[in-house]
Amino acid sequence: MSEVREKATLAKAITPMLGTLSTAQKNEALRLMAEALVAETDSIIQANAVDLERGKTNGLAASMLDRLSLNPARIAAIAEGLKEIIILDDPIGDLLEEFARPNGLLVRKVRVPLGLIGIIYEARPNVTVDAAGLCLKSGNAVLLRGGSDALSSNKRIVEVLHSALALSDIPVDALQLVTNPDRASVDEMLKLNGLLDVVIPRGGHSLIQNVVKNATVPVIETGAGICHTYADNDADPVKALRIAINAKAQRPSVCNSMETLLLQEDFAERHLQAFAKAFAEVHVELRGSANVLKLIPEMKAATSEDWATEYNDYILNVKIVADLDEALAHIRQYGTMHSECIVTENAATAEKFMQQIDAAAVYHNASTRFTDGYEFGFGAEIGISTQKLHARGPMGLPALTSTKYYVHGNGQIRQ
Amino acid sequence: MSEVREKATLAKAITPMLGTLSTAQKNEALRLMAEALVAETDSIIQANAVDLERGKTNGLAASMLDRLSLNPARIAAIAEGLKEIIILDDPIGDLLEEFARPNGLLVRKVRVPLGLIGIIYEARPNVTVDAAGLCLKSGNAVLLRGGSDALSSNKRIVEVLHSALALSDIPVDALQLVTNPDRASVDEMLKLNGLLDVVIPRGGHSLIQNVVKNATVPVIETGAGICHTYADNDADPVKALRIAINAKAQRPSVCNSMETLLLQEDFAERHLQAFAKAFAEVHVELRGSANVLKLIPEMKAATSEDWATEYNDYILNVKIVADLDEALAHIRQYGTMHSECIVTENAATAEKFMQQIDAAAVYHNASTRFTDGYEFGFGAEIGISTQKLHARGPMGLPALTSTKYYVHGNGQIRQ
Repeated sequence: MSEVREKATLAKAITPMLGTLSTAQKNEALRLMAEALVAETDSIIQANAVDLERGKTNGLAASMLDRLSLNPARIAAIAEGLKEIIILDDPIGDLLEEFARPNGLLVRKVRVPLGLIGIIYEARPNVTVDAAGLCLKSGNAVLLRGGSDALSSNKRIVEVLHSALALSDIPVDALQLVTNPDRASVDEMLKLNGLLDVVIPRGGHSLIQNVVKNATVPVIETGAGICHTYADNDADPVKALRIAINAKAQRPSVCNSMETLLLQEDFAERHLQAFAKAFAEVHVELRGSANVLKLIPEMKAATSEDWATEYNDYILNVKIVADLDEALAHIRQYGTMHSECIVTENAATAEKFMQQIDAAAVYHNASTRFTDGYEFGFGAEIGISTQKLHARGPMGLPALTSTKYYVHGNGQIRQ
Repeated sequence: MSEVREKATLAKAITPMLGTLSTAQKNEALRLMAEALVAETDSIIQANAVDLERGKTNGLAASMLDRLSLNPARIAAIAEGLKEIIILDDPIGDLLEEFARPNGLLVRKVRVPLGLIGIIYEARPNVTVDAAGLCLKSGNAVLLRGGSDALSSNKRIVEVLHSALALSDIPVDALQLVTNPDRASVDEMLKLNGLLDVVIPRGGHSLIQNVVKNATVPVIETGAGICHTYADNDADPVKALRIAINAKAQRPSVCNSMETLLLQEDFAERHLQAFAKAFAEVHVELRGSANVLKLIPEMKAATSEDWATEYNDYILNVKIVADLDEALAHIRQYGTMHSECIVTENAATAEKFMQQIDAAAVYHNASTRFTDGYEFGFGAEIGISTQKLHARGPMGLPALTSTKYYVHGNGQIRQ
């Protein structure tokens, strides 16, 4: 049996008992995990050094090496993250509906774990801990497959977490790490119907698309964000600029940052120059549509590819549109249904925009950067769903659960 | 552009306006559809005759011909089905959550349509109407691909429904029928990412498995049911027999009927003979495990394949198990997570069974035949989900919806 199937089988076998654990039992395991990580800081950093050295030899980009790199402060922060999961409400066992039928049947709809969750992610050791914590707190088993550049770090981290689980009521088998660095192990996970109840990809566009295109197990698609901000002629220019600068430049590398700014004609004529200057001051490169270039000829032209690109960088497309309909059409063509914003003082226009745009989150006069589990008050999140089934937007613990009908009878049969 | 892509594009384009229709507007359209079907009974039967003739020539099985066949009473019943959808609550616009954040942002979580739903089904013209009614009532557009043996009937039915929609506020484009009988049109639907928000297969095992294995768009898996009933030593034999006979023989062709009966040893020794006699009286063929055959040597032996077969017929596997654990192990190995029942007077055993079995519906002392939208009081259903994401068990209108966050600000930016 392959490593993937063997570990998935072990993890799946204990899912029934995981669903019966109390909140206190799960929280105690999380506490032990957090403690063990801090206690084993040195050995984790040693293992991480192996990955970093190999990464440098292999010519990993500086940003990748940074995401891969661990130090005592980062390990302490990762352990803190587990403690934040402890204080989250446990959704398992929640009674969602209860009704009696005329024939006397009592039906109860109860929240239950999904079962075995597969997480496929990049070379970020913090995700190993974070995903393990969220899945275990929600009563699930988890099969982790992190980027092979972090394999040494992940192996040590999972050893440490296993040593903590061994002292807890959560069986060690509930947490499994795929150590085969070959891409074939990912492909195998994607076809593990009957064992994996869902696979969640966490990472960049190509990682997510590979999962969506090749999985036969259910997938929750996360993360891709080509987000827009549209300021119409009724927009308050001070608010619009504040929001646009924040949506682009506060943290460009994340999915809820803005990639394209749409301005209605009159507003653009009045304010485009000031906006361009302000973006230059925060080192954002602008790429304009033809009508923007008429106002600012020295700006770089946006190509058709640019409108469809998630830069994750200090680059912003700017387009002038005639009206709301043109803004809606542009967003429908290029948006990824993540987060979309209108800035306007006209409530009716705002309502129409918000209703007509089919995105996980639609904003009126606020930065798209708020689409986030912490900012919505859910606590830690496993990702931001950009699909419409099961969960949409920031996914807290309830997104890692399913439901089950308990039907209590006294001999009822169907007529 | 292919027929599938062209029709999907037309339907998708009007999804934003469909989400804004009032309940009254949608109900009026359903009423007009029901009226038109009855008024056009003759032309529908004429079109159906073409399918039936071709089906006979092609040697379709009698049961298939029966499902395909329409007459005035059946058309009237189909129209009645639409009227039942009218009285269902409209889930669209429901406010599911509303909360203010410390920074003054107001967040509202609102129920919205999924968008464009693809339905792939067999040669059953009633599904054409039923699926169209449920999808339109929940504010969705729908792309139907029925079995090619019903193509003439489906074409006429959709013409009739289009004539009704033309008099209503629902655009005709909201309802699309794929008329290309080639299997390639199904394959194309399964890969229509960006246009189809979900595909729901309705039909037998091979149809569903084809969709699950090949779709890159999100799927809701429905229908496969290998359901068990377990009577332990504490079971009331009268209840157990009543429930078992009902679960198997009241309507064997459906997914919530029983395929395997599990009996604990002492109970089997006391009652197996009586059970076997009762099943023979209702013309159910029994296939037994080795230990059953020791008690009734003339019974046919169940093969390893039998335990994994959804007979949809008057055939039942019977197995004697030592205890609850063996029953649980058997169900975990062969069950399809649909509906599972324990018959016992021991409440603790029942609770353990219900908690440990990972199925959409778990029963204590009642027939598995109750897993059904009507029986649960949801009204008409689009199917019974056997997956754990999004919807589980009987799916009413809320299963055809998603959610969206409306975020109302006043210039908030992220710190």
